[in-house]
Amino acid sequence: MNQLLANILLTEDSEKDPENTSYQIDSVVAGSTITVSNDLRHQPKGIRSLALKAHIKYPDVLDFSVVVLDKPGTVAGVFTRNRSASPAVQIGKAHVEDGQAQALVVISKNANLFTPTAYDDTLALVEGVGAALNIPKTDVLPSCTGIIGVPLPMSNVRAAIEKIPSALQPGLIDEFAQAILTTDKKPKSASIKFGDVVICGVAKGAGMIEPNMATMLAYFFTNLKLSGDQLKAILKRVCDSTFNSISVDSDTSTSDSVMIFSTNEIEPEAKHLQDFEAALGAMALKLAKDMVYQAEGATKLIEVTVAKARSEAHAKAVAKLIVNSPLVKTAIFGSDPNWGRVAMAIGKPLADDEPVYDPRNIKITVSDIPLFMQGQSTDVDLQQLQKKMQQDKTINISVELGEGDARWMVWGCDLSYRYVEINAEYST
Amino acid sequence: MNQLLANILLTEDSEKDPENTSYQIDSVVAGSTITVSNDLRHQPKGIRSLALKAHIKYPDVLDFSVVVLDKPGTVAGVFTRNRSASPAVQIGKAHVEDGQAQALVVISKNANLFTPTAYDDTLALVEGVGAALNIPKTDVLPSCTGIIGVPLPMSNVRAAIEKIPSALQPGLIDEFAQAILTTDKKPKSASIKFGDVVICGVAKGAGMIEPNMATMLAYFFTNLKLSGDQLKAILKRVCDSTFNSISVDSDTSTSDSVMIFSTNEIEPEAKHLQDFEAALGAMALKLAKDMVYQAEGATKLIEVTVAKARSEAHAKAVAKLIVNSPLVKTAIFGSDPNWGRVAMAIGKPLADDEPVYDPRNIKITVSDIPLFMQGQSTDVDLQQLQKKMQQDKTINISVELGEGDARWMVWGCDLSYRYVEINAEYST
Repeated sequence: MNQLLANILLTEDSEKDPENTSYQIDSVVAGSTITVSNDLRHQPKGIRSLALKAHIKYPDVLDFSVVVLDKPGTVAGVFTRNRSASPAVQIGKAHVEDGQAQALVVISKNANLFTPTAYDDTLALVEGVGAALNIPKTDVLPSCTGIIGVPLPMSNVRAAIEKIPSALQPGLIDEFAQAILTTDKKPKSASIKFGDVVICGVAKGAGMIEPNMATMLAYFFTNLKLSGDQLKAILKRVCDSTFNSISVDSDTSTSDSVMIFSTNEIEPEAKHLQDFEAALGAMALKLAKDMVYQAEGATKLIEVTVAKARSEAHAKAVAKLIVNSPLVKTAIFGSDPNWGRVAMAIGKPLADDEPVYDPRNIKITVSDIPLFMQGQSTDVDLQQLQKKMQQDKTINISVELGEGDARWMVWGCDLSYRYVEINAEYST
Repeated sequence: MNQLLANILLTEDSEKDPENTSYQIDSVVAGSTITVSNDLRHQPKGIRSLALKAHIKYPDVLDFSVVVLDKPGTVAGVFTRNRSASPAVQIGKAHVEDGQAQALVVISKNANLFTPTAYDDTLALVEGVGAALNIPKTDVLPSCTGIIGVPLPMSNVRAAIEKIPSALQPGLIDEFAQAILTTDKKPKSASIKFGDVVICGVAKGAGMIEPNMATMLAYFFTNLKLSGDQLKAILKRVCDSTFNSISVDSDTSTSDSVMIFSTNEIEPEAKHLQDFEAALGAMALKLAKDMVYQAEGATKLIEVTVAKARSEAHAKAVAKLIVNSPLVKTAIFGSDPNWGRVAMAIGKPLADDEPVYDPRNIKITVSDIPLFMQGQSTDVDLQQLQKKMQQDKTINISVELGEGDARWMVWGCDLSYRYVEINAEYST
């Protein structure tokens, strides 16, 4: 089981509607259940931010944004494993290494890679932001997202950098969540508070999402004091269960990154630490599922559980086979309870010489209705099930492999005409 | 390089039109170039076949077919690696083991797996065909293709088996190529003759095609006498370069198989052996590319070459990343020379801790026009290129990785509205 998920509570009757799900944790600090807020109302103190129209690609959209901590804070990050990773990712990786950072700069509408000056331009960006804020460039983390292969308009970038000191506003502003978007339907924000501890986060991502530490942009900010190593370990576990368990189209982005910053305001007590990972997990789960459901052309959220697998890694790999199968994705788009395609997808070879399944050990459930078990299809009214699937916005697919006790959940979306349309008409 | 391809000649001016490509080899036997025929005109003697309407799923379509050699022949096969492989695949694998077979039975419109009686029904099928032909069941190879999870209508199957002796006709009949189809646009046949040696073949496949020894159905028949081991080695090499180098949607079928039968009529001379692999390769290449171009919803054939890779296996894996990328496939559907998506696709991690590419070593060419090289995009009129791509039926994408000398080619197709439509409305 993505262990983390055991500590996150979803409102039962909202589960079928991904836009209306309520994410909660049992808080030790609060002594009660607390809920993730879908906005940025809970924020650490000592943060300023800005979002500007820098004319990166279009003249009149927010595309340049900065977040600054008043003092150097603790930081951790996970980054794309794509071999064409952008200079922003490469420089970001180097700059989080020491666990300390003070500023984040995000350029959207241009991924800034595969251009002759991409690396130098990214370096100039962090140097410029560092100089404008009077901090070392190694305390600045950059992200760039958007089109590949087009040089950054550096004079526009420099003009934006000059405006930083005067444009900064207190707090993490809603415009930041807006400025980092590309083809997203809408901004994605979340925040939570237990005792004096707050965490807030924003995310961006709509296509090219298949996480191998490599999914989209997400930034979290907290006031709980943690070491860089603690923050890194927690962020890795949270990402494994959430951002790395979603997939829109199996394509792995070259740019994307998850980062967490702490202002170190609150000295941690044991009870804080107990709540922290569950709270960050609940926020990450919310943002990850928002990303998938609001993904390019998605009409349904697909929630896949693989259980009775021989390991968690194997359960996750098989679940990804299901959620990435174009035949499964189109079936869900058509509200077709086509469990045969699930049977095909779970068999796609992950290694050499894997044994053939004994179908008598396999159980396949779609929308909570068992469709195949004990070696045969069940006696279900498929037309009625199809009607149910047409109404539900979340379709769950569960498979038991009969090979062990491990379990994992992943999320994806269907494959629609609209996905084809958006992606056939994007760049040129 | 898929070595085999070096020996296959394509008519230069037909290369852009996959429906009109002419496949040829330089024949040692003929002392000249010979051409693959797109029909079954060249056939071994001593073969009979039939195609019947057995009412497997629909009342009035060809869905049950048999091919019989007059005497036991040599056989080799390659089969799906899908872990949900059908009983037909499992039994077929066992029956080719000794390199001898005499009959092939193909049921279409039902894949016959994940039903309580699937294994027993397949056994009854080969036993029944063996009894009707008075040959051992172990000399009968079965294939089933179609829907998953629906029991075979065995009384209809038995009625068809009874008709075998009286329905057999001399030769491999065109109706056989028709009877094995499911959602294919049209039958796919090929034959070739050099000296007295003939090879003919038919294939079927339109979706769920991503080969890991696992693509579709294809059957070849020859009169050249070869040992089971010779035939197996040649078939494996041919499949690696052709059927295992195509992909429609990355989904790996549970049923599909490639088999070759020899009647052993012609004693081989050295010159025959020289021609044989190239000839089989040219036929397999033609059938494989037909399959992709006629695939579900395809409007373009995509031909991907990855060169300057560190190994052939790595070149093939990277080429598959490109041809399977939904973002690349939709771009080609939109005739969009979006080389940035190719840059993304080649970076998808194939193993842990692979180094980031240096873009200066990467060259990306689309439709014969270099779009990215020496670290920057080229000065190409993209709108003009887009017009060219709109007209071409084959779009080639070439990538040089700058990591070695190995090279591989694979074929796929674009991702269109029609693919979504066909697959959202298939089963229930």
